[in-house]
Amino acid sequence: MISGKNYVGNQASAQGPITFHSFDPKTNSENPWLFYEANDKEIDEAVKLAAEAFQIFQNITGKKKALFLRAIADEMEALGDDLIEVYMTESGLPEGRARGERGRTMGQLRMFADLVEKGEWVEASVDTALPDRTPIPKPDIRKMLHPLGPIVVFGSSNFPFAYSTAGGDTASALAAGCPVIVKSHPMHAGTGELVASAILKSAKDTGMPNGVFSNLNSNSYHVGKALVQHPGVKGVGFTGSIAGGTALFKMAAEREEPIPVFAEMGSINPVVALPSSLEKKGEYWAAQYANSITLGVGQFCTCPGLILGLKSPSLDVFAEALGNALGQKEPGVMLHPNIYQNFKKGKETLSAQTGTSVVADITEDVPPNVAQQRLLTVDGDTFLANPTLHQEVFGPFSIIVQADDASELETIIRELEGQLTGTILGEENELKEHSGVVEALKDRVGRLIFNGVPTGVEVCPSMVHGGPFPASTDSRFTAVGIHAIKRWARPVAYQSWPDNELPDALKNSNPLGISRLINGETSDKPI
Amino acid sequence: MISGKNYVGNQASAQGPITFHSFDPKTNSENPWLFYEANDKEIDEAVKLAAEAFQIFQNITGKKKALFLRAIADEMEALGDDLIEVYMTESGLPEGRARGERGRTMGQLRMFADLVEKGEWVEASVDTALPDRTPIPKPDIRKMLHPLGPIVVFGSSNFPFAYSTAGGDTASALAAGCPVIVKSHPMHAGTGELVASAILKSAKDTGMPNGVFSNLNSNSYHVGKALVQHPGVKGVGFTGSIAGGTALFKMAAEREEPIPVFAEMGSINPVVALPSSLEKKGEYWAAQYANSITLGVGQFCTCPGLILGLKSPSLDVFAEALGNALGQKEPGVMLHPNIYQNFKKGKETLSAQTGTSVVADITEDVPPNVAQQRLLTVDGDTFLANPTLHQEVFGPFSIIVQADDASELETIIRELEGQLTGTILGEENELKEHSGVVEALKDRVGRLIFNGVPTGVEVCPSMVHGGPFPASTDSRFTAVGIHAIKRWARPVAYQSWPDNELPDALKNSNPLGISRLINGETSDKPI
Repeated sequence: MISGKNYVGNQASAQGPITFHSFDPKTNSENPWLFYEANDKEIDEAVKLAAEAFQIFQNITGKKKALFLRAIADEMEALGDDLIEVYMTESGLPEGRARGERGRTMGQLRMFADLVEKGEWVEASVDTALPDRTPIPKPDIRKMLHPLGPIVVFGSSNFPFAYSTAGGDTASALAAGCPVIVKSHPMHAGTGELVASAILKSAKDTGMPNGVFSNLNSNSYHVGKALVQHPGVKGVGFTGSIAGGTALFKMAAEREEPIPVFAEMGSINPVVALPSSLEKKGEYWAAQYANSITLGVGQFCTCPGLILGLKSPSLDVFAEALGNALGQKEPGVMLHPNIYQNFKKGKETLSAQTGTSVVADITEDVPPNVAQQRLLTVDGDTFLANPTLHQEVFGPFSIIVQADDASELETIIRELEGQLTGTILGEENELKEHSGVVEALKDRVGRLIFNGVPTGVEVCPSMVHGGPFPASTDSRFTAVGIHAIKRWARPVAYQSWPDNELPDALKNSNPLGISRLINGETSDKPI
Repeated sequence: MISGKNYVGNQASAQGPITFHSFDPKTNSENPWLFYEANDKEIDEAVKLAAEAFQIFQNITGKKKALFLRAIADEMEALGDDLIEVYMTESGLPEGRARGERGRTMGQLRMFADLVEKGEWVEASVDTALPDRTPIPKPDIRKMLHPLGPIVVFGSSNFPFAYSTAGGDTASALAAGCPVIVKSHPMHAGTGELVASAILKSAKDTGMPNGVFSNLNSNSYHVGKALVQHPGVKGVGFTGSIAGGTALFKMAAEREEPIPVFAEMGSINPVVALPSSLEKKGEYWAAQYANSITLGVGQFCTCPGLILGLKSPSLDVFAEALGNALGQKEPGVMLHPNIYQNFKKGKETLSAQTGTSVVADITEDVPPNVAQQRLLTVDGDTFLANPTLHQEVFGPFSIIVQADDASELETIIRELEGQLTGTILGEENELKEHSGVVEALKDRVGRLIFNGVPTGVEVCPSMVHGGPFPASTDSRFTAVGIHAIKRWARPVAYQSWPDNELPDALKNSNPLGISRLINGETSDKPI
């Protein structure tokens, strides 16, 4: 069922000499399927087909794109248990997670289908002419968003469905009208191939042009680099490490024609526990955070890796309670030996820093690739002085920082790099009391949370998944929610253009019945 | 009246040893005022003040920001004829242009004042909680745009008012809530200082924090480089050359924390003359384009530098008519000897390319810094084969390309770099006939124009001034019109945040009365 081949447009292809296997971290052994890394000819052909497809795909109606996106969701579901089993074998993640993530992925596809079917996302704006204006007449000018062109999507390691082959980046780019070339993640190349087959079947069934989607295997940097540097590629979506995303971002800026890269990268997701939260609800938050830190074996970009509190007996009690709760969690298998090794290395590096002490640790023997969660504590001065302690350890790991006072808390937050999320635990009146802390946090994050945990990224219009660098490479956009589509589109204005020849979204009669900005006022009426 | 000093926040400052004069291109002599280039201490202090001011300014209401922006417009006007005279002396531009551009600049400031007073630009979105949802409850999530932080604006050479000190970049960044540090253009440092004084007076009068605006003089690359590399700077606006803008863009990408750079750079603004336009209205378009090419001595980013037609007798007739009309235009003085020298060099380089021939030229002697307009013609094959001919010559210069057929026309357009504008001259039915040409043009530009000239950038919500690289470094944004504010803001989400502590734009009661996205539907009602 899994061929190991690339999809260059609709064509299964295995022309290159480099092969690799994916890996089952649970059995600690290679999976049976052999994957063929795409070679330069296949890369070039995929981009060429995408550029050709773009000429057709960019003008396909929202209604037809919606059929395509919904078909992908249906075909993913039709792959049934086979898909779920391959997912589990390639990720070590449990069945419930696999099914839940597939559901979320299908939900994302359908959300973007609804969005483009409705058609309002193009931000249509019309300014009508004033031919008698003095000293010079005002021309008729209208604008709307148009797709950028072929987009390269890098599959993420930690979301084999939701942020890989048919994940949020692919769904939003296709919705915008951009062909997509996926650089499949080698850890789950089999899952990727199956999902790619679902996309291609849907494309054929709904009459999309060949080249609207390609799936390229790769177990090296070469394929990704060649894609990002290819003149035919017009944008990049990436979810992964800071080193990887930053390298691609810089590569794209160095091109003869620079292109936008939206890379969603690292985050330690600081949590500020204000005094009352620990005094009144310390046990509750300890239990919540033990769950959040170990959820998905800590392999979420929103895993809380940093808990900030004021030095106090209640912080000590909380640390002990969180340590106990973490100690009772069953250690879980990580996605891949490489990820496990990085976790182990990161955990040991941070634990070896002067001034840190271990609050909780798992010391019993565990099977291969199983992460032993750990909680450290350190005082505020030490944390501030040592940037190594600010680094993300991807996995079930967190540090409690004991600050001397609110002013040090604020300083620590201001010294942090950009983050996806920042959380405040406390009471409403404490937000005013600690406004310096709140303002500092707002400055550093894409999403503020009050009395909650950062894990669990709700897919809805108001979600912001992104943030100041290095949380993402462009904080002006989000990777989750309907507005993720804006990453792949640019405005085009039409001046004095004949009504008949305008895109439907800009025609006087408003045939799509969408809400538009007419001479600066919102209206869904014809002109 | 002009001190030659920098404004580091409200403080006039001249600490550095480097000085320079601006230049009157008409008299071909230095202006009397001596300007002090900002030194590293002044640069650092300006950024530090801006970062401090940001903590206050980002939370100032839209109504108060509107007062500030309107005050700037009023104070610019209050500078009266003195300002107009300095502008003319530093640019060689005529009085009508000076007054017109001041009016446009004031209009832009008031447009952004209206926008932020209304408050809807923040794209407020609210998704209310579903505490009973299974399997997991949905939290309350809300989002809106927040300003990025201190922005550096590079004054442009060719718009001493409208795209410099208090121009579109400054107005939009201040409107967003970002403090601005202007790297003043050395060619009109006196004009810049006067306008800066108007901004600072307005800031004081309307209670804005010190540091919300600084104006730094510079006659070298050093000041701009130091500003773009400064960790306290969070975004850059630039209008100028491809070389300059691209260098800043790459510099910003190489920072430890990369920041967005919106550089509006070069464009040759291709015009496609379809057959009927030349057969029926050749004389008319020749007159229109002679005006457009020489408007402002060709020193507009939308100057039409490339006219594409199909080899035909009517194209020959048009070329001759355009040549004649250009020959009758009075040559004008350029902004500065450097700009004049670049024009001359570019014109000669392109004229020296094999296969080009001169259609019209001014050969009589002219005063210093006066540009002698020139029109070349070349056939399609030669143009396609020689990228030197695709380069912008900033000034009154254009090339007519004679293509063999529509297919070559399309190929030429596809080979062009990104452009601010693309124009089609013809009849409505020709748009369908030449859909390949139209689609190719749409792919390359930010604004399409039918039967018009590209010069004249209407300031309205539907305007797009930007385009694929190198027209701009980020085609997803525009530099002109209300949406230019989006360059300087990023979304921030608030999850389960107490209503009282939310920004007004997100509160249940909707105290600003703005239109918001409530659970995916537009509404201006309270929740």
